[in-house]
Amino acid sequence: MKLWGGRFAAPSSDALDRLGHSIAFDRRLHAEEIQVNRAYARALAGVGVLDAAELERMLAGLDRVAAALAATPPPPLADEDIHTAVERMLFAEIGPLARKLATGRSRNDLSQAGFRLYLTAAIPTRIEALDGLRAALVGQAETAADALVPGYTHMQRAQPVVFAQLLLAHFWPLTRDRARLLAARDRAAVSPMGAGALAGNPFPVNPEAIAADLGFSEAFENSVDAVGTRDYALELLAAGAILGVHLSRLAEDLVLWSTAEFGFVRLDDAFSTGSSLMPQKRNPDGFELIRGKAGRLLGNLVSLLTTAKGLATSYQRDLQEDKEPVFDTLDTLGLALPAAAGAIATMRLRRDRMQAALSWDLLATDLAEYLVARGLPFRDAHDAVGAVFAHCDREEVAPPDLDLATLRTFSPAFAEDVRDVWDYRRSVEARAGRGGTAPEAVRAQIERAKATLSHV
Amino acid sequence: MKLWGGRFAAPSSDALDRLGHSIAFDRRLHAEEIQVNRAYARALAGVGVLDAAELERMLAGLDRVAAALAATPPPPLADEDIHTAVERMLFAEIGPLARKLATGRSRNDLSQAGFRLYLTAAIPTRIEALDGLRAALVGQAETAADALVPGYTHMQRAQPVVFAQLLLAHFWPLTRDRARLLAARDRAAVSPMGAGALAGNPFPVNPEAIAADLGFSEAFENSVDAVGTRDYALELLAAGAILGVHLSRLAEDLVLWSTAEFGFVRLDDAFSTGSSLMPQKRNPDGFELIRGKAGRLLGNLVSLLTTAKGLATSYQRDLQEDKEPVFDTLDTLGLALPAAAGAIATMRLRRDRMQAALSWDLLATDLAEYLVARGLPFRDAHDAVGAVFAHCDREEVAPPDLDLATLRTFSPAFAEDVRDVWDYRRSVEARAGRGGTAPEAVRAQIERAKATLSHV
Amino acid sequence: MKLWGGRFAAPSSDALDRLGHSIAFDRRLHAEEIQVNRAYARALAGVGVLDAAELERMLAGLDRVAAALAATPPPPLADEDIHTAVERMLFAEIGPLARKLATGRSRNDLSQAGFRLYLTAAIPTRIEALDGLRAALVGQAETAADALVPGYTHMQRAQPVVFAQLLLAHFWPLTRDRARLLAARDRAAVSPMGAGALAGNPFPVNPEAIAADLGFSEAFENSVDAVGTRDYALELLAAGAILGVHLSRLAEDLVLWSTAEFGFVRLDDAFSTGSSLMPQKRNPDGFELIRGKAGRLLGNLVSLLTTAKGLATSYQRDLQEDKEPVFDTLDTLGLALPAAAGAIATMRLRRDRMQAALSWDLLATDLAEYLVARGLPFRDAHDAVGAVFAHCDREEVAPPDLDLATLRTFSPAFAEDVRDVWDYRRSVEARAGRGGTAPEAVRAQIERAKATLSHV
Amino acid sequence: MKLWGGRFAAPSSDALDRLGHSIAFDRRLHAEEIQVNRAYARALAGVGVLDAAELERMLAGLDRVAAALAATPPPPLADEDIHTAVERMLFAEIGPLARKLATGRSRNDLSQAGFRLYLTAAIPTRIEALDGLRAALVGQAETAADALVPGYTHMQRAQPVVFAQLLLAHFWPLTRDRARLLAARDRAAVSPMGAGALAGNPFPVNPEAIAADLGFSEAFENSVDAVGTRDYALELLAAGAILGVHLSRLAEDLVLWSTAEFGFVRLDDAFSTGSSLMPQKRNPDGFELIRGKAGRLLGNLVSLLTTAKGLATSYQRDLQEDKEPVFDTLDTLGLALPAAAGAIATMRLRRDRMQAALSWDLLATDLAEYLVARGLPFRDAHDAVGAVFAHCDREEVAPPDLDLATLRTFSPAFAEDVRDVWDYRRSVEARAGRGGTAPEAVRAQIERAKATLSHV
Repeated sequence: MKLWGGRFAAPSSDALDRLGHSIAFDRRLHAEEIQVNRAYARALAGVGVLDAAELERMLAGLDRVAAALAATPPPPLADEDIHTAVERMLFAEIGPLARKLATGRSRNDLSQAGFRLYLTAAIPTRIEALDGLRAALVGQAETAADALVPGYTHMQRAQPVVFAQLLLAHFWPLTRDRARLLAARDRAAVSPMGAGALAGNPFPVNPEAIAADLGFSEAFENSVDAVGTRDYALELLAAGAILGVHLSRLAEDLVLWSTAEFGFVRLDDAFSTGSSLMPQKRNPDGFELIRGKAGRLLGNLVSLLTTAKGLATSYQRDLQEDKEPVFDTLDTLGLALPAAAGAIATMRLRRDRMQAALSWDLLATDLAEYLVARGLPFRDAHDAVGAVFAHCDREEVAPPDLDLATLRTFSPAFAEDVRDVWDYRRSVEARAGRGGTAPEAVRAQIERAKATLSHV
Repeated sequence: MKLWGGRFAAPSSDALDRLGHSIAFDRRLHAEEIQVNRAYARALAGVGVLDAAELERMLAGLDRVAAALAATPPPPLADEDIHTAVERMLFAEIGPLARKLATGRSRNDLSQAGFRLYLTAAIPTRIEALDGLRAALVGQAETAADALVPGYTHMQRAQPVVFAQLLLAHFWPLTRDRARLLAARDRAAVSPMGAGALAGNPFPVNPEAIAADLGFSEAFENSVDAVGTRDYALELLAAGAILGVHLSRLAEDLVLWSTAEFGFVRLDDAFSTGSSLMPQKRNPDGFELIRGKAGRLLGNLVSLLTTAKGLATSYQRDLQEDKEPVFDTLDTLGLALPAAAGAIATMRLRRDRMQAALSWDLLATDLAEYLVARGLPFRDAHDAVGAVFAHCDREEVAPPDLDLATLRTFSPAFAEDVRDVWDYRRSVEARAGRGGTAPEAVRAQIERAKATLSHV
Repeated sequence: MKLWGGRFAAPSSDALDRLGHSIAFDRRLHAEEIQVNRAYARALAGVGVLDAAELERMLAGLDRVAAALAATPPPPLADEDIHTAVERMLFAEIGPLARKLATGRSRNDLSQAGFRLYLTAAIPTRIEALDGLRAALVGQAETAADALVPGYTHMQRAQPVVFAQLLLAHFWPLTRDRARLLAARDRAAVSPMGAGALAGNPFPVNPEAIAADLGFSEAFENSVDAVGTRDYALELLAAGAILGVHLSRLAEDLVLWSTAEFGFVRLDDAFSTGSSLMPQKRNPDGFELIRGKAGRLLGNLVSLLTTAKGLATSYQRDLQEDKEPVFDTLDTLGLALPAAAGAIATMRLRRDRMQAALSWDLLATDLAEYLVARGLPFRDAHDAVGAVFAHCDREEVAPPDLDLATLRTFSPAFAEDVRDVWDYRRSVEARAGRGGTAPEAVRAQIERAKATLSHV
Repeated sequence: MKLWGGRFAAPSSDALDRLGHSIAFDRRLHAEEIQVNRAYARALAGVGVLDAAELERMLAGLDRVAAALAATPPPPLADEDIHTAVERMLFAEIGPLARKLATGRSRNDLSQAGFRLYLTAAIPTRIEALDGLRAALVGQAETAADALVPGYTHMQRAQPVVFAQLLLAHFWPLTRDRARLLAARDRAAVSPMGAGALAGNPFPVNPEAIAADLGFSEAFENSVDAVGTRDYALELLAAGAILGVHLSRLAEDLVLWSTAEFGFVRLDDAFSTGSSLMPQKRNPDGFELIRGKAGRLLGNLVSLLTTAKGLATSYQRDLQEDKEPVFDTLDTLGLALPAAAGAIATMRLRRDRMQAALSWDLLATDLAEYLVARGLPFRDAHDAVGAVFAHCDREEVAPPDLDLATLRTFSPAFAEDVRDVWDYRRSVEARAGRGGTAPEAVRAQIERAKATLSHV
């Protein structure tokens, strides 16, 4: 069965059918298809295209179709698309009455309605998974609010921080990702039903009523826009790509921290894998895969942006390419977020390795700030301390072991109390302002983080 | 002058300098750099690093540097970056006091502050330009609310619409783009000052006070996130890419409508160009360029997403690649939006060509709906009308010229009043629901559109 | 069964398994997996790890596994990947002997071997399909070597050409795509067997002999490169993306030429589709889908480029993301190329519509060239003819109807024989150089095109 | 001056001019523009459009224009594009004769000729720079052919290798990049002159002769393809993106190896930078920037692919977007390759840190292979050794310290000679096949690498 063909003398070629059939991926929308069909049947009854008995038969028929489609294992479907499949199955259930359901609507508005409906539910489940990861980060941060560790810039040891600060540096970007996903969900929650193929619906069905019936927050503004736009999907794919980049950065940290060389964390056995050749290996595969999946999240975005580029207004068949990248982005997030959350929640912090990684160069800035406190302009202090550290490098001496006389050759401002500088914890505690790395500041930050977890 | 180097024995290589110097593009941020420096000087004075006289001298010095940087022609700058340039120039103005300004801060927070500040002003100017285009579309739509024209799907004539409906089909996506740009602006409006290199600021300057002084809406939550994230830039680039796709679709329509074959509009001479070879040509170059620029808007997004992918937390020098794609996206929008607005506002609608393009096949759906009104299920009506049009094709007869007897061979439901179907205006007027293409519905839509123009 | 796990106390989590299992897509490589296993077994026998009887049993076992994997319907596989599946099934066939097959190799070299082997066969089948499209273009070009039609630039009528010239303008880019695909195939045809996990193979198997056994053209140069690179896949994806852009341009032409407004071709019923709402529609869906699929071809390239970006040398698990984009690109080409070839081969040219689209402005350049022949510098001729056409526009007169006196007001060089200019065929015939649009030049071009079809 | 305009009543708008003028970037092609103009003038003289004296004056005029354009500082140009600028300047030099130069050609073929000519010279200079990097890698490899270091997969210590093997793992991908760049150069070396706007040239100039005059390897096959394709640019951008990914991976390794934690290399002062805040820092900024520039190389490719997607055949103004991404890719490679080569050539290997990083787990595979040599199937050996290492982990004992009795609890095949396994060099030397990591194999590899450097 095709939903068209009255004017065609020959069937479509196999090559075209193989190219064009979407049932392999749009069957995922079967429940939404039924839901939209039910709402539309009610709308048709409201304007007299169906009488009450017909409506009842049609809804009952749709229920039976819904059950058949939801069966396990799922039924094989050889139809062109889910719309055709449902119409065929409905015909098998209720006969010619099924042929009234298409009145005044088109696959152009119908397919968009199902897709948008799907997104309004699917996005929130990914947000939930994202919240799981955010909670795991906060949970570990709570245990690590006073664990000193080198902070890095350019991958070089920079200044001491607490480990919680590094974990929370991932929490906040993910929190902004959450806002972007939520915005994408809201953008999707607009009903296209009533737009028809592109011109609207000549039967006086009320788009706003159908929108409300389906739980959408509003109805379309313009029928041509309703069938032709995909920007809500692009916005979701963009949010997914940015989130993907954030996950890749989190993953990179975890992969690094799991190395023999850094060693700040040990992933749980349940989140490690081995090697088929090398018996000793414990690989952080989960985080590698998560890092790698930034590729497909970015690729999915590029795919649909490119498809939409330069298309004339209104519906073009190219737009059928909208669903697979969106499904893949949702599936990828559905796999990556729980794996990340589980691995973070179960990893063990290795405070011994963190402690061992603290080295005196991390306090160079503090040494310069000591000189500032004694009146030097910062740039002069910076130059003097740079020279101190170059000297220590050359002489292979630890900076705290320099005697005061030597220090004074670099700046006369050095005094006895310079020895107080060589204290990692003091360095961290000095950075106590909002967002700083002092334990008390971090604990305040954790409270703010937890507040965003509970109220959303 | 370099802002670092105390511990280095040899100067950096030319190859590295050429690779790393950012002054060619970050000098664009000179005004913001001064503004942030002024706020930070006030903050340092607030905590006693500068006394009142020093603050006054420093602010006066910064004013003179600002004036020098804003001169026409702009001064040549051979520094590593705008931060180094300003510090060098300030030293020339006020001597060693200049060397105190760097106290407690880093280029990591400083450069982000200037960039974010720039965006909070630059994005709104693009929104204004976008509003200019939106207003031009509404303006033309008002003159075309009853101009009948074929509506197309798959580039094939589908159903009659009014031309205003096609113009407004571009208005609403652009309206959603506006919301996305605004969200990107809000995301940028967060102050990183006080984050230092990554660990915070040991002098008790108040990040929230600096944020307020600079007009940001809030201060950073986490110092490592503050220097390491670029998601606000990614969000802007994503909004720009989606807008670029929308502009490319608008442009495609205008290019098509300007062809000899469609001919629905004639661009003004001021928005047409000629050929160096073919003297007769009137080319819609503006819209072609706008369509083509979707490429760079997408490329800019991909560029920064890729750069950020897989970076370890905190600041990495890779992130210096953030500015050029963002500037290019802003510049591209700054060129494309006014050109599009001007071309739309000045184009002439060719109602004769629109009228001439109306053909009977546009009313096939109406013919099917006629049969529905006479009791046929829609699918049966669709089949019958498909056969009618195939017959007309074969026999080379215009559908309204078919006699009733012939029509009845396709469906006995046809009756005398079928002749009323062959009226384009009647078809359009039937689609009177929200968002439909009936002139009254379109006028209501125009009112809603205008409301979004005035209140934002 | 896992191929690792000796040192793990707990099983891997469901979340990690779901994220990491590749069997759903790498089972496609089952035949190549067997082929590589057979070659490797022979290599192990060659160095004494297997004796002759063991080899025989192992090869017989692998044959039985191959048959089981190739059965219809395919067997369900719940293993981690195809390597694990084959090793499990082989154990079931031949018992503990199966556990010798992994000697000295790793999934790192094994998986690459199967993937590369697959590509060396899969790329040529796409080249064949591409040749089918190229042949279809040449075939239609042969019938259209003297069919006059407007040539367009900027979508504006520019100069007359023959329709064959437009078809062949797609032939040559596709011919270059063929060369790029072939280069990608050659790049893939390098054997990684013997690279082990990254360090090479301590058993003295000969990588070059295994390469030859498998039909590869050479063996790897460096064991770390062998397991860590994916540039052969990137090169294929890049060739696919460029080909995708070319197909999108061909498709855009066909979609335009199928419109009511252009109408130069009519697609066969077998390559057209209808509408579920509008009974009269004949949509060029095939070409719209082909145009749209440029998106995924580009997205696949971006996906793997992004995944590979910034990875440390050697194997990282991220690289498992290599297969899906490559398979999708191959599948997409496998769908799009035959559909395009079939639609081109069966379309009907509408010479009446081509003829009707010829308009005098197409000869403006010829008119300028007429003036050049009479001594005017081209720029002056261009200006004069521009003015002539502006005059005709204004006065609504056809240029050939201008009397000589009027023409001479634009340039005194016009003479009686100017009337010969108004001949579309003469214009085309004048462009008789290599690659020009004169029928004879086009016929020569067709011969060159056919030569590339036959000899490759 | 515009090269068109005869038929226009009003000048083009500022907005359109700003959008469309390309002089800011295409002035880079001034030397090629002159070169093409000279060749075309000769061709026009060959067919009598210019006489000998005119040709001489024109060539002399072009020489003076060339000199003016090449002056330092370069002259300001306010023209639409370089073609207009040259024509204007030529007119200033030689008067109305200049107006003959445009005979029979168009900016469509002219601009492509200059661009393609530029690429045929610019690509080889990048290949030279790439060879510089390849030579630097081989140079360091020669000094490190016997320096033992852990080899990593999944960033986990895997097996011992020699450091040269890791350096050469970057050499070979870059060698394949070289082949791709060369192919892109060859693809560019096709002359479009004679294609005119799209239809060919009615004056009997010989495209093949012009091609030869300009040093192209051949002339276009089809005039419409000649002006409309950009696939040679796409091929270059694709080669650049893949090379960018390879550079990013090299850079990632160098950044990691420069960390305090790995420490295998120390970059020279000339290729390190400091921090404006932290006086002790030595940052590998060069490699970070190189890694980050993968983003723009990828973005440039996406930009032009997207621009070209879906364009109708022949020239569209969108294609003006071809030059900036190509120039940026060439410039980026021109900056990144010498910086990488310099940093690699001057870095110091830290054999002490390499030595210190060797740990017993690197020999686990060797231990399994020991058991294989004593008759165990590899999988059984793998399981046993996995258990050995898990035991050592738990008991915090070094594997070589296990007594034989304990070892035999894991496998009775262990014997006294197991102690020979605990020798990193023996492990490396065992992998002596082609491409393996044994010093002798690596030295053979180095010879092969050097051969590719000298003969190309």
